[in-house]
Amino acid sequence: MITKIANETYVNRVGKIQEYLKARQLSGLLVTNPYNIFYTTGLFHFPTERPLTFFIPQSGEPILFVPVMEIEEAHATPFQDIRHYFEYPGLKDPIDWMIEEVQKSYPIKKMIIDHASHSLFRQIEEKLAPASLAVDKLLHEMRLIKEKEEVELLKQAAIYSDFIVQAGMEIARPGISEIELLQEMTNLTLAKMIEELGEIIYVPGGPAGGLVPSGVRTAMPHALPSAKRLQRGETQILSCGANVGGYRVECERTCFIGDVSKEQEKVFRVMATAQQMAIEAMRPGRSCAEVDAIALDYIRKEGYGDYLLHRTGHGKGLEEHEAPWVDAGDQTILRPGMVLSSEPGIYIEGFSGFRHSDTIVVTEGDPLVLTKFPKALDQLIIKG
Amino acid sequence: MITKIANETYVNRVGKIQEYLKARQLSGLLVTNPYNIFYTTGLFHFPTERPLTFFIPQSGEPILFVPVMEIEEAHATPFQDIRHYFEYPGLKDPIDWMIEEVQKSYPIKKMIIDHASHSLFRQIEEKLAPASLAVDKLLHEMRLIKEKEEVELLKQAAIYSDFIVQAGMEIARPGISEIELLQEMTNLTLAKMIEELGEIIYVPGGPAGGLVPSGVRTAMPHALPSAKRLQRGETQILSCGANVGGYRVECERTCFIGDVSKEQEKVFRVMATAQQMAIEAMRPGRSCAEVDAIALDYIRKEGYGDYLLHRTGHGKGLEEHEAPWVDAGDQTILRPGMVLSSEPGIYIEGFSGFRHSDTIVVTEGDPLVLTKFPKALDQLIIKG
Repeated sequence: MITKIANETYVNRVGKIQEYLKARQLSGLLVTNPYNIFYTTGLFHFPTERPLTFFIPQSGEPILFVPVMEIEEAHATPFQDIRHYFEYPGLKDPIDWMIEEVQKSYPIKKMIIDHASHSLFRQIEEKLAPASLAVDKLLHEMRLIKEKEEVELLKQAAIYSDFIVQAGMEIARPGISEIELLQEMTNLTLAKMIEELGEIIYVPGGPAGGLVPSGVRTAMPHALPSAKRLQRGETQILSCGANVGGYRVECERTCFIGDVSKEQEKVFRVMATAQQMAIEAMRPGRSCAEVDAIALDYIRKEGYGDYLLHRTGHGKGLEEHEAPWVDAGDQTILRPGMVLSSEPGIYIEGFSGFRHSDTIVVTEGDPLVLTKFPKALDQLIIKG
Repeated sequence: MITKIANETYVNRVGKIQEYLKARQLSGLLVTNPYNIFYTTGLFHFPTERPLTFFIPQSGEPILFVPVMEIEEAHATPFQDIRHYFEYPGLKDPIDWMIEEVQKSYPIKKMIIDHASHSLFRQIEEKLAPASLAVDKLLHEMRLIKEKEEVELLKQAAIYSDFIVQAGMEIARPGISEIELLQEMTNLTLAKMIEELGEIIYVPGGPAGGLVPSGVRTAMPHALPSAKRLQRGETQILSCGANVGGYRVECERTCFIGDVSKEQEKVFRVMATAQQMAIEAMRPGRSCAEVDAIALDYIRKEGYGDYLLHRTGHGKGLEEHEAPWVDAGDQTILRPGMVLSSEPGIYIEGFSGFRHSDTIVVTEGDPLVLTKFPKALDQLIIKG
């Protein structure tokens, strides 16, 4: 069992990036997005106004630029050319200083960057001139296909994603508030993760958590936890997730408190069928748009087209939502190693919402569903 | 007691923005930053890949552009020209669609934008041509000075920030893990907030929470909660905060489990004196850089200059960290209504860190310290 990506993997990723730079005669890549920095170095940080960047030259040792307060964490990465500044904004602008350090260390003609705000891009572009700067999609492309080690971490994250849904079903009861329910199920899951994993990478949103709307609030797909108390006869959505080693999985189930009305059951079955159809369709060669159409067209055919509020799903990995998008507007062709959610939803305002979500790995063969919590109606009744 | 900003205030803010646009002959402001959208509309959302923007024309009704899943929340704002799109990426790019809608509704010659990634800026700029686009600091400037209503919310957030530190001192004990400690103190505080406030605005990080490093981990300013268990004789930092109506306050205390060594006491006193000196200096007319120098120079004079890892403080408001920066590089002159943290820290690797933080409002008179939890050493001993 692994709990994080091996340092060797980060070194290999940097090697691949350097091959790409060499093949295109690019002087180097400046990594600025926090998830991309984690992906290339293993250093996770909560982004603040203090810039933290990683420069990968075409050949030679990369440079990790950090505010001094992150230096101890930076030393745990396999990259030991770590340069630090004291503070933001500082007497010397940290970005200007980083670019000067890069230029002192390596010849720069054409630099690429993974992401930047408009003002940051302009600042670096001016500082580099006459050398050029361009935004590049390389890291985006690399992150689309998960390596074996990443899938191992996702499999473990799925175990805790299932566990937190189970905990939610056991803790939910008429009278408890949504916020209390979420806290209690999160506590139980965290205690188990600490016990079993020891080391935890604390991403935004925490190691495990979710949304737990009840009753009419389930008709809002992203209803945040509220003081509303659960009531018998209501729908209860347990929209949960967990991460291991920084990799995130989601498991969402539509449950019912005590009993289910005919109308709840009817809509539930349409949603559940559409969700399963999308999973079955997640195979190499299919486009994201095709998978989306299979699920949403079924829901439309059953007469619930007016109650769709979102696409079928999205990519999973280091981010809660990441590319590709299982949406009519994404023509990406599925390839083995892509990881997706399947979660078409039906939302009837003033009545109830209905959504299951699983996390699926596209493989050469059948889709590999990582989350295994039961999905049948009679397994989703919360004791009233 | 108020729990959120009144809708009328958002209307007034939009009025001020329209005066600014008129005076400068600007056609409109496109708001894209999630905190700026909250500041101008009262709509809080967790940012995802789905763009959500607010267009304020020089005169006339503003337009709120949302993905369909946010429509119910959008209707709670005072702005009723709400236009929605289905999904991201969608068959039609949502940003292109928004710009076309703006152009259909208002004549656009010069548009300003609050913030954008480089690629978003370029996309809008091309779409608008020959009309022009520029990044503008207006909202940044408006948010620097807190209105009376904002200070009211901050005062309430301070009550819960003090409460969670108190809860932490009561719950902390040798043997408990940092993660368990944080969960238990957060639970208690949330229960109180639900009971007393009812309505809660769920910002990233949750309504209340923090960091709770213990022992040698206190020497890392931003050490995330871990499975490490507390031990007698260790330093325990309770670095906490809470928000009411979206406004955040922090209260941080350096505590000791059971007993305190002479060396811990010595460094504690230097930190505590510097922290108080910075608070006393937070008066109109002083610059941020001057306040920073007062605290950090005192620490240097006492011989701990090598153990500084960060500036004296930062602004507080809608964001955890916001401008102005109490740092050598920020020449901003303090004005009444600015809200700042005072939190100079001393971090001795392998031994211990020391940091108190309070949240302070700059006033015409004495600095108004919102957080009131005791700061003297003998009040910060956790029962061993």
